[in-house]
Amino acid sequence: MGEMASIGRGVPNVDSFDKVLGRARYGTDIALPGMLHAKVLRSPLPHARILSVDTSRARGLPGVKTVLSGADTPGLKFGELNPDETILAVGKVRFVGEEVAVAVAIDEETALEALELIKVDYEPLVAVFDPEKAIKPGAPLIHEDFPNNIAYQYHIDRGDIGQGWKEAAVVAEGRFTAAASHQGYLEPQCCVASYEQGRVTVWYPSQSPFRDQGYIADGLGFPRHRVRFIQTFVGGGFGGKHGQRLPVLGGFIATRVEKPVRLSFSRDEEFIAGRPSIGCSIYMRLGLNREGVIVAKEAKVFGDNGAYTIFSPRILDTMTRRPDNLYRQRNIHNEALLVYTNKTPTGAYRGFGNPQGTFPLESLVDEAAHKLKMDPLTVRLKNATRAGDVTAHGWRPKSAGLVECLELAAERIGWGKKRTSKAPRDGTNNHIVSGVGLAGLIHVCGRRQMPTFYGSQAMVRVNMDGAITLITGEADLGQGSNTIFAQIAAEEMGLPFEDVMVQTQVDTDTSPQGLGTFSDRLTSIGGNAVKLAAADAKRQLLDFASEMLEATADDLEIRAGMVMVKGSPARAVPVKELAGYASKRRGGALILGVGVYDPPSEFPDPKTLYGNISTSYAMGAQAVEVEVNTETGEIKVLNLVSVHDAGKVINPLLASGQIEGAVAQGVGAALLEEIAYKNGKVINPSLLCYGETRIGSMPSMEVHFVETVEPMGPFGAKGLAEPAIVPTAAAVANAVRHATGIRLHRVPFRPTELLSGIRGAAKKRPSV
Amino acid sequence: MGEMASIGRGVPNVDSFDKVLGRARYGTDIALPGMLHAKVLRSPLPHARILSVDTSRARGLPGVKTVLSGADTPGLKFGELNPDETILAVGKVRFVGEEVAVAVAIDEETALEALELIKVDYEPLVAVFDPEKAIKPGAPLIHEDFPNNIAYQYHIDRGDIGQGWKEAAVVAEGRFTAAASHQGYLEPQCCVASYEQGRVTVWYPSQSPFRDQGYIADGLGFPRHRVRFIQTFVGGGFGGKHGQRLPVLGGFIATRVEKPVRLSFSRDEEFIAGRPSIGCSIYMRLGLNREGVIVAKEAKVFGDNGAYTIFSPRILDTMTRRPDNLYRQRNIHNEALLVYTNKTPTGAYRGFGNPQGTFPLESLVDEAAHKLKMDPLTVRLKNATRAGDVTAHGWRPKSAGLVECLELAAERIGWGKKRTSKAPRDGTNNHIVSGVGLAGLIHVCGRRQMPTFYGSQAMVRVNMDGAITLITGEADLGQGSNTIFAQIAAEEMGLPFEDVMVQTQVDTDTSPQGLGTFSDRLTSIGGNAVKLAAADAKRQLLDFASEMLEATADDLEIRAGMVMVKGSPARAVPVKELAGYASKRRGGALILGVGVYDPPSEFPDPKTLYGNISTSYAMGAQAVEVEVNTETGEIKVLNLVSVHDAGKVINPLLASGQIEGAVAQGVGAALLEEIAYKNGKVINPSLLCYGETRIGSMPSMEVHFVETVEPMGPFGAKGLAEPAIVPTAAAVANAVRHATGIRLHRVPFRPTELLSGIRGAAKKRPSV
Repeated sequence: MGEMASIGRGVPNVDSFDKVLGRARYGTDIALPGMLHAKVLRSPLPHARILSVDTSRARGLPGVKTVLSGADTPGLKFGELNPDETILAVGKVRFVGEEVAVAVAIDEETALEALELIKVDYEPLVAVFDPEKAIKPGAPLIHEDFPNNIAYQYHIDRGDIGQGWKEAAVVAEGRFTAAASHQGYLEPQCCVASYEQGRVTVWYPSQSPFRDQGYIADGLGFPRHRVRFIQTFVGGGFGGKHGQRLPVLGGFIATRVEKPVRLSFSRDEEFIAGRPSIGCSIYMRLGLNREGVIVAKEAKVFGDNGAYTIFSPRILDTMTRRPDNLYRQRNIHNEALLVYTNKTPTGAYRGFGNPQGTFPLESLVDEAAHKLKMDPLTVRLKNATRAGDVTAHGWRPKSAGLVECLELAAERIGWGKKRTSKAPRDGTNNHIVSGVGLAGLIHVCGRRQMPTFYGSQAMVRVNMDGAITLITGEADLGQGSNTIFAQIAAEEMGLPFEDVMVQTQVDTDTSPQGLGTFSDRLTSIGGNAVKLAAADAKRQLLDFASEMLEATADDLEIRAGMVMVKGSPARAVPVKELAGYASKRRGGALILGVGVYDPPSEFPDPKTLYGNISTSYAMGAQAVEVEVNTETGEIKVLNLVSVHDAGKVINPLLASGQIEGAVAQGVGAALLEEIAYKNGKVINPSLLCYGETRIGSMPSMEVHFVETVEPMGPFGAKGLAEPAIVPTAAAVANAVRHATGIRLHRVPFRPTELLSGIRGAAKKRPSV
Repeated sequence: MGEMASIGRGVPNVDSFDKVLGRARYGTDIALPGMLHAKVLRSPLPHARILSVDTSRARGLPGVKTVLSGADTPGLKFGELNPDETILAVGKVRFVGEEVAVAVAIDEETALEALELIKVDYEPLVAVFDPEKAIKPGAPLIHEDFPNNIAYQYHIDRGDIGQGWKEAAVVAEGRFTAAASHQGYLEPQCCVASYEQGRVTVWYPSQSPFRDQGYIADGLGFPRHRVRFIQTFVGGGFGGKHGQRLPVLGGFIATRVEKPVRLSFSRDEEFIAGRPSIGCSIYMRLGLNREGVIVAKEAKVFGDNGAYTIFSPRILDTMTRRPDNLYRQRNIHNEALLVYTNKTPTGAYRGFGNPQGTFPLESLVDEAAHKLKMDPLTVRLKNATRAGDVTAHGWRPKSAGLVECLELAAERIGWGKKRTSKAPRDGTNNHIVSGVGLAGLIHVCGRRQMPTFYGSQAMVRVNMDGAITLITGEADLGQGSNTIFAQIAAEEMGLPFEDVMVQTQVDTDTSPQGLGTFSDRLTSIGGNAVKLAAADAKRQLLDFASEMLEATADDLEIRAGMVMVKGSPARAVPVKELAGYASKRRGGALILGVGVYDPPSEFPDPKTLYGNISTSYAMGAQAVEVEVNTETGEIKVLNLVSVHDAGKVINPLLASGQIEGAVAQGVGAALLEEIAYKNGKVINPSLLCYGETRIGSMPSMEVHFVETVEPMGPFGAKGLAEPAIVPTAAAVANAVRHATGIRLHRVPFRPTELLSGIRGAAKKRPSV
């Protein structure tokens, strides 16, 4: 790879200063002339037929421009996989909080007042909230075209599961559940929309502007080109800032009022009608042979889709199968069902189901190790997937630092000593006990989601003064992709990082098409496109340099902003000068490098789902030390070590930041965060009640990187923004098991489960 | 050329509806969070030394953020040709209205109040307002580095002027003057600027965003890439909306307050400190031989530069030499001086000096014809430049409809009858007399201004749904270039016009570099770039179509949105479908066609200024009929016929609109408009006093096109937005001469000149 000037430098995010100084403009900062304000009337019932919507009184309120209900919409269904939702409810409502009508007025207060004047007659229907009940015969049907409320399902077998069970010396099993949690971004969604030249323009903090453009077009019945989508700064997304109904509704309103309109979520609307993670219950059995080799795994996964589907079939699949690739498994039987319920529709959240799926697997690996009386670390190292492997589902990682991550995590937490020297719990009145636990992770770097359309493209423009402008259609949602891209472009072109500007917000009219930010695809896929675009621009520059320096382009190189003849550094010209020359030689045209990268990943057959879905795979391990109060059931994570194989780390500062943030969310999901329902109604829709992680819950933390060199990555890099959330709950549960002997089955962990476990264990123990 | 679907269609401007419905967002509609407001303190003196500026009291006013004067600026000089101005006055003020200080406050009222509290001590200097006096020895020196106040000067000789005078049978001569006039755009300039990521972003209704970006960079001492310039909708420009000091000042303020700031002109500031046209005095002699052939021309041109220079040396050259190319002249002596005075700096205005220069030439052609007792039409036809000619200055028009334009204009005004059957004036009490007059014009379609940098570039993006997005760096200032470009792209690609979207506003970060809108260059140069970009996109599309249709790309054509095998229309695929296929085959990347066009025009040697400066030349003629009240001196233009050779007319609706608008300005310049000074102070700085043309002054009008096919133009087209203003004053003057026998020498024509002429003529006549 040689010495690199920009790659590996911990430069701050290109937009950090503006964010810190309050100069970055978010959606809420947009004010257009004549802008109206809209507020949404939401269903108070989880399941009901809409008999009538009377908006006449609301329309009459002074300051109200219009009031729209489902009957005013095109009634078209949109969505990514099961197009099942409409802009406003038509015919039925399916969850408490569903959008029934919208009032548009000169200000938010008037719009809210108008909502009070809308009269909706509902015929309540029986509702169902539990996926395992919703599939039962006789359960109320939520969508007429989805029998048994099944949104998506599959069975996947690998190897010979019967043979697997025959080989198993020990079996660990259990039912594990995870609650839905909110992505917890600080910026509530805000959409501004306007309508000009027969086109609707939508400003929204999307992490996938081109996909959101598509949903809006589908919902409005417009060809795509009649929707312009402009990304605003994203105040956190974590998977939640795409595929939402809000921008579709905003765009629709603009087409009806033909004026700019603003529609934003209050915090409680975020909890009631956002797209939280999928709650689930997972039945899992794991069999290991005498040597500690995993020989059989069975799982039945119930995903709680909520009332509408956006990405959840893919999330269900991730939850079900991704963790299988962590180990060298052969015999697998997986069954997965995604089930409609009368609850808030679910969506993507960092990890995309991988945390929910890793929690049971890594819990059972520990349990099986205990049964074998083997060190869980040893079992993991024995089974860990390595470079060159083909996993049970067909993944073929070219680089794999899992073993090294596990070893380093264990070493840094003090594994050997703490696992063995720990005094046995003895029933004394010392009710604070501690323990250490481990868990591993594997994640994709861009999972191919369609056979023919998964690439990325970028443009690199060489300005007259030699600085370059990087234009990408991939959305930075705060994770720092624009900074990473700038480092890649600078490195490839031989320019100082400071000479790279990035167009920081995507505009579907001018940005090259990008699929968006999810599946940890940006560094790998977007980064490769940027590298190609930079190489293209460089090649064009060198063609002009070869005129100036009278040398063939092949004999030239660019270093630190100077083009020079290799081996004759005196024959050199600054890029600043060359750029002006090149532009003038082209009649003023700026050099434009274009890069298109379509990864050589495989789109699996929809039946078998077998294949190498990503070009590379991020791996890692976390080790934690916990302290448990056995009288209150309180769990405290004292120390956490997060070790990652993200290939070559392009920016250590941002990489550590991503891991710290993901761990905060992992700890929150393990200990605190849950969207709580009562009769289908969210009962904790505020940051105060919801229980998001605060600084006081955070452990002392160490972050380490095991730098592999990924041949498919730009400069050897892989993704790393999602992974660190994946193993946390399992690692904490394993540490609690070490401390207390109790296996936890539900995230977030509640003191009640732990205490009842402790009491049950005490009963079983012979009395003193 | 074959049958064309989009070229030749009178579609309305792509943004017409939004403008009419009030949905187009202009600069004044931009509101950024925390935006401050700035107002400018202007010099009350035409020429003075600044002894001190005390801003302390103003800074103390509640609500004031800062007050900045010249001492706070980098003091760097910027400008296009003679970089001679600074952001705020440093050391000296040079005109009444010059920017001395700026107050930045929470609102405009507070900023205005703060201006009252700034104390400036001036030492008044002797001022000079008349260019002919300013060059005299002993005149006060305005810029220390420009001796004799000469901003630019040249002598240019062609042929043998001495021989010319020998051949001359008649000589017509005179001193002609033109007053400075304002471009009269409806939207006063408004600039919003902000500062983020170490870069300044400026929103401004520029007609040359990339050049204004450069001036801002020069003024701030920034590299160009640290200035992002975003064009807002332009509410009229006509040459005036570029090269202004306002956006440089706005950008500077933003870098100092590090917050968004808005700075706009009031209407009176437009008149006092905008960039009006160059006032001038021209001494001209014209010699014709017995046959009516022009054999000699001499001119001495004094241009009144005002206090600072932006484009005026080029305007002076246009004024001096461009009209020479109208006729087959051989012997010419031109002398031109651009002179600094203590008045408002001047700039570009539709025609770029050509109206001022055509007025004396076409006046003297008439006078010479009278002396020869020839019909002025005959003289013009005899001398008119024709296709294939090489003019005195080296122009080589490939298409030339001048003769046809003159003939048609004469015919439509009723020339033959009205020139000959007119009853001679006879001193009766009938004081309303009428007459007809003619004048011709020639204009460039993009005059090459630099040897290596005069091209244009465009990008055509094929969206997934088959609609295309056209991205250009050339600025539509209302003349309709975006619509023309869309027609060119549609025609070239074989798509319906409705499937072309245009990015309507230029953003220097994402738009390809464009020089901007001036010199009638957009249709010819920008249009050719668009055509090339469309051809490139089409070629890429056909490559994919050849896969789908199993035919070579050469055997395919696109018509009305269908790709078909030539001769086998059944083997076809809609572009809508093909576009999706192509994008998917490229991993999601959209096809991007890029076009770069550098015209084969010549950049003349700066000494000789000889050469074919444009690829093509627009021509035309106007005939007018006037009515003159010989008692009041009032002139009324009754009928006007404007006939143009603009090559193939791409959009007849917009073309006629351009001509009607230009004629309105031509009539205004001839009869009404003048920026009037008293001791260097503009005394009519309002629309009410200034005398802009209103509908009541407009003649009944006919517009005709003589369609030549210009081989260098896209689809045979040439420019046409500027020309119709060029001959109006001369045509009116010639008609007045026909009606009254009086030759007018000054635009705008004032009744006093006419009346004193009439009285003088009456004295000479023998008494009855």
